[in-house]
Amino acid sequence: MIQLINNLWFKRRDIISDGFDQSLDYISKIIPLKIHKIPTGTRCWTWIIPEKWSVKEAYIEDLHGQRVLDLKEHPLHVISYSLPIDKLVTKQELLKHVYTNPERPDSIPFEFKYYERDWGFCIQDNKLKDFTKDKYKVFIDSKFEKGDLKIGDYTIKGKTDETIVLVAHLCHPAQVNDDLAGVAVLVDIAKEISKRKNHYTYKFLLTPETIGSIAYLSQNESIIPQLKYGIFLEMLGNDNTFVLQRSRQGNTRLDRIARHLMKSQLNNFREGAFRKIVGNDEMVFNGPGVDIPMISISRFPYPEYHTSNDNLDIISEQRLKESKELILEILDIIDKDYIPQRQFKGPIFLSGYGLWVDWRKNKKLNESIEQIMLNLEGDKSVFDIAEELDMEFNDVFDYLNKFLEKGLIEKHYL
Amino acid sequence: MIQLINNLWFKRRDIISDGFDQSLDYISKIIPLKIHKIPTGTRCWTWIIPEKWSVKEAYIEDLHGQRVLDLKEHPLHVISYSLPIDKLVTKQELLKHVYTNPERPDSIPFEFKYYERDWGFCIQDNKLKDFTKDKYKVFIDSKFEKGDLKIGDYTIKGKTDETIVLVAHLCHPAQVNDDLAGVAVLVDIAKEISKRKNHYTYKFLLTPETIGSIAYLSQNESIIPQLKYGIFLEMLGNDNTFVLQRSRQGNTRLDRIARHLMKSQLNNFREGAFRKIVGNDEMVFNGPGVDIPMISISRFPYPEYHTSNDNLDIISEQRLKESKELILEILDIIDKDYIPQRQFKGPIFLSGYGLWVDWRKNKKLNESIEQIMLNLEGDKSVFDIAEELDMEFNDVFDYLNKFLEKGLIEKHYL
Amino acid sequence: MIQLINNLWFKRRDIISDGFDQSLDYISKIIPLKIHKIPTGTRCWTWIIPEKWSVKEAYIEDLHGQRVLDLKEHPLHVISYSLPIDKLVTKQELLKHVYTNPERPDSIPFEFKYYERDWGFCIQDNKLKDFTKDKYKVFIDSKFEKGDLKIGDYTIKGKTDETIVLVAHLCHPAQVNDDLAGVAVLVDIAKEISKRKNHYTYKFLLTPETIGSIAYLSQNESIIPQLKYGIFLEMLGNDNTFVLQRSRQGNTRLDRIARHLMKSQLNNFREGAFRKIVGNDEMVFNGPGVDIPMISISRFPYPEYHTSNDNLDIISEQRLKESKELILEILDIIDKDYIPQRQFKGPIFLSGYGLWVDWRKNKKLNESIEQIMLNLEGDKSVFDIAEELDMEFNDVFDYLNKFLEKGLIEKHYL
Repeated sequence: MIQLINNLWFKRRDIISDGFDQSLDYISKIIPLKIHKIPTGTRCWTWIIPEKWSVKEAYIEDLHGQRVLDLKEHPLHVISYSLPIDKLVTKQELLKHVYTNPERPDSIPFEFKYYERDWGFCIQDNKLKDFTKDKYKVFIDSKFEKGDLKIGDYTIKGKTDETIVLVAHLCHPAQVNDDLAGVAVLVDIAKEISKRKNHYTYKFLLTPETIGSIAYLSQNESIIPQLKYGIFLEMLGNDNTFVLQRSRQGNTRLDRIARHLMKSQLNNFREGAFRKIVGNDEMVFNGPGVDIPMISISRFPYPEYHTSNDNLDIISEQRLKESKELILEILDIIDKDYIPQRQFKGPIFLSGYGLWVDWRKNKKLNESIEQIMLNLEGDKSVFDIAEELDMEFNDVFDYLNKFLEKGLIEKHYL
Repeated sequence: MIQLINNLWFKRRDIISDGFDQSLDYISKIIPLKIHKIPTGTRCWTWIIPEKWSVKEAYIEDLHGQRVLDLKEHPLHVISYSLPIDKLVTKQELLKHVYTNPERPDSIPFEFKYYERDWGFCIQDNKLKDFTKDKYKVFIDSKFEKGDLKIGDYTIKGKTDETIVLVAHLCHPAQVNDDLAGVAVLVDIAKEISKRKNHYTYKFLLTPETIGSIAYLSQNESIIPQLKYGIFLEMLGNDNTFVLQRSRQGNTRLDRIARHLMKSQLNNFREGAFRKIVGNDEMVFNGPGVDIPMISISRFPYPEYHTSNDNLDIISEQRLKESKELILEILDIIDKDYIPQRQFKGPIFLSGYGLWVDWRKNKKLNESIEQIMLNLEGDKSVFDIAEELDMEFNDVFDYLNKFLEKGLIEKHYL
Repeated sequence: MIQLINNLWFKRRDIISDGFDQSLDYISKIIPLKIHKIPTGTRCWTWIIPEKWSVKEAYIEDLHGQRVLDLKEHPLHVISYSLPIDKLVTKQELLKHVYTNPERPDSIPFEFKYYERDWGFCIQDNKLKDFTKDKYKVFIDSKFEKGDLKIGDYTIKGKTDETIVLVAHLCHPAQVNDDLAGVAVLVDIAKEISKRKNHYTYKFLLTPETIGSIAYLSQNESIIPQLKYGIFLEMLGNDNTFVLQRSRQGNTRLDRIARHLMKSQLNNFREGAFRKIVGNDEMVFNGPGVDIPMISISRFPYPEYHTSNDNLDIISEQRLKESKELILEILDIIDKDYIPQRQFKGPIFLSGYGLWVDWRKNKKLNESIEQIMLNLEGDKSVFDIAEELDMEFNDVFDYLNKFLEKGLIEKHYL
């Protein structure tokens, strides 16, 4: 996963840009992406697709030609979607267009003005003191032109068309954890899922943040009823503990599976309500008129967020791997889960059916046999039972497989 | 409001009486009352309308003609609906018919025996020591005759026949806060409401307590299905804090609006369950087989309750005005409230629609935009949203008006 | 009740046995039992009826013929359903088949192997030290043969076929509190109920534990829909406080009535969830595919449980009598309960109908009149009202009888 990040992180991956397109091409060589294109100017619900943006050169220099900032040094020095400019300005006017992060004075902040039409630079806060002159020349050679917003889509068909969608955003130039980390984890998960026989269909989407999801869904409304659950993958490489942001519905099976796994497998995790931890495309997928339950799994917050310090130093293959494994386990449970429907009456003659469990072999399962037997009325899934009895999903799943083999239950899909 | 009270308070406003009728006539000159008349003997559900009652003279004197009590001194000296009597009685027998309030020894209690057919006097407790003789002459020249129970009814038509009913009782001779205070506030509210364009129809009723409401509703059963909510106005002029007595349903929109306003506008208020604070005609309107949610707003308790000290000294125009304003605001919200129904998909492109709210101008609204946007699914009213987000109703109402103008929502009535 | 126990306790009442049959015959002389017979080998849902078992002689002796254990001394010395054996064994092998209770070293434990096909002895733990030899002769002259599992059934018809079922198990040789105590209480309750005019039908069942209930219900499936509630009577003669084990549903009317009575009549009682206090035939009656709400009332636990100390010394007629009375009161309430349906409108004119209650005569009822009047909408039973208002059932029942006489309510059955 680190390799993918290493190859893409320094690209100018603005929301509609050559850098974004090149990144999609790179990933297409790892997983077979279908690329959706939505042209500039397309009305997408209440939004309109913006223009493609690029920048060749940008700098600030004093009247002697001494440069105090140069885009060549770092892609973040110009705000994403800045207007072009070529002008002599007073220091006072300049400073209205210069963004810093006083809390991290050595780093360059990441700023964008997609819809506000303004020009601007970003710089380390402790370099402001170098602006000693009264006048400066500001120069940004940026270009707005018609283009295509692009979305990478890898769909793996399952037995049913009901679809689990996983989303990460590929935009944000020179940012690593936000969210190339999510992209890298998503790509690896997609590779794993493609090797399995799945009950659900899985859709993996790589988008520019917010506008990408709006563009995709508004142009493909007919797919919405098939989308059963979603997971947004975000900032998964840094050192913080995991945090589960619940879906808008708040307690769907997906929310509960994620929580159940985190509880049983992690020493520490955090949890919060929809939109109370981190804001991303769940506001589109789980938003008005769409409303697909979408949880978000991240390691937010981290101090380097939206600065030039969000680089390779703060992430690790180990953290990415943990993230991938956790999400794969969530998908494993949701895919295997079903409703066990009782086909017997009375308490089962356990020893006669070889269903007795020695408490010396599995104490928890031994103590739970009766409760499992009492919960096969068709209103609970295997996961529901595991959650209620505070057991591992697979312990209940494996035990009920024996019931299935002996015809004591039927399997109903959710 | 004080003027109305001043003119009516000392009248003998027994439940069916000339004093009650005169009071209704007086109020008819301020607001156009329709007078409902229900004759003595009419069966009203499980009740029967009692006779009209009057008293000309009443006294207690010793055998030397020395009067120890005389009705001329205070209307409360005879219990309301006392039988007539003219008899020599022992002191012992007399004292069985003399009512005092030992907790307020200087005041005359207010007592009534509408249905028990007995005679009786009320007196200051500290005057009992003057009853030093063995025998007394007791004389009450009261009369029972056929008459009409009367109800004053002012109905202001709105766009819909669904009706909010406000009730106060006009009976209780020589009592001010209980409930001429409620009557005065009700009359002023009626004047205000008559000037507005209203969604709901408003009905203002002035009745003799309990039997009046039973008489009105039992003789006008067809109106019951139109009555959506009710407010009983009671004891609103004294110095205590407000207390909200909930409807029998306990948590209707009206209960919640009253609570929300009291919470946000008053430093202090109290709240209690149906019939746990104060007992009035809500037991009829919100009672068996009728069941219109009726809250009661009062400033109960107060120490002068049901004594001769419940007079002009304990109330003020300021307290009446606060009461009127609070109840008008409740009516304002309930009248303006509606269901906003989303007509868009996805999160709204706020800046494109001029719906962005600067946090420097309204921090709470800025922070709530997303939650407002997520709550327009047709299952919540504007008030529901304001309550859920702990916001002022009008802030949400005004903001959603912009959505309405731009066609982003439709207005559905509740 | 002690007499019945005295006559039956020392019999070999193994689940299918001559002792069990003789016990049923004895009880048939007290209440008219119908005996259901289900032959060995009959498939009953997932179970199969086992063979009849008997044992003539059993002992352990050393090679000199010195007996260290003899069945003649106590029926518990051989495990119920032991295989026959006649063999010389090493001490090591012998001890694998000898059961003791180290926590009660002076008592012989009660053990059984109905379905495991093994041989075994039970002995006082402190006699193990007498096994000083290397080899022993073990001899058990037991017999397995075709027979009939038997269930005693006394059904008392009521106005409706809806049935309350009471169950106790008659098996467990030489055990008294578990559950001859329950049997004795059940028999006495049946005698009482047979004298009354009942709304419900009552069914009293005496069974061998678990397999008896499975046999009865599986062979009489058509009766299941008529069984409305059940009570398992268990271990009711010892000195511990009562414990209510809730039905699987957890809060049925029967659960609530039992709790309400225990709360108001006992200084002390305990309560627990289904299968969390004691395990008996409620797992069949209230189990998968049957699901008749069955509470269990017992005085479990007690230290002599499943040992030779569970004898006449630990029970008393007084405790049995308390148990009988408590259960009879539960049945009394459930039988009398009905839905009172309001036939009036508005608050009732209480004094006019003679329904006023003087607070000096019954303060709680006086304070509750209004709440009773407000709860006659047809969604609550008399018991529901009593429970909600924390009143004695009979106080509410008697007061509402007056409403019934005056036509103010109608009686609807539950």
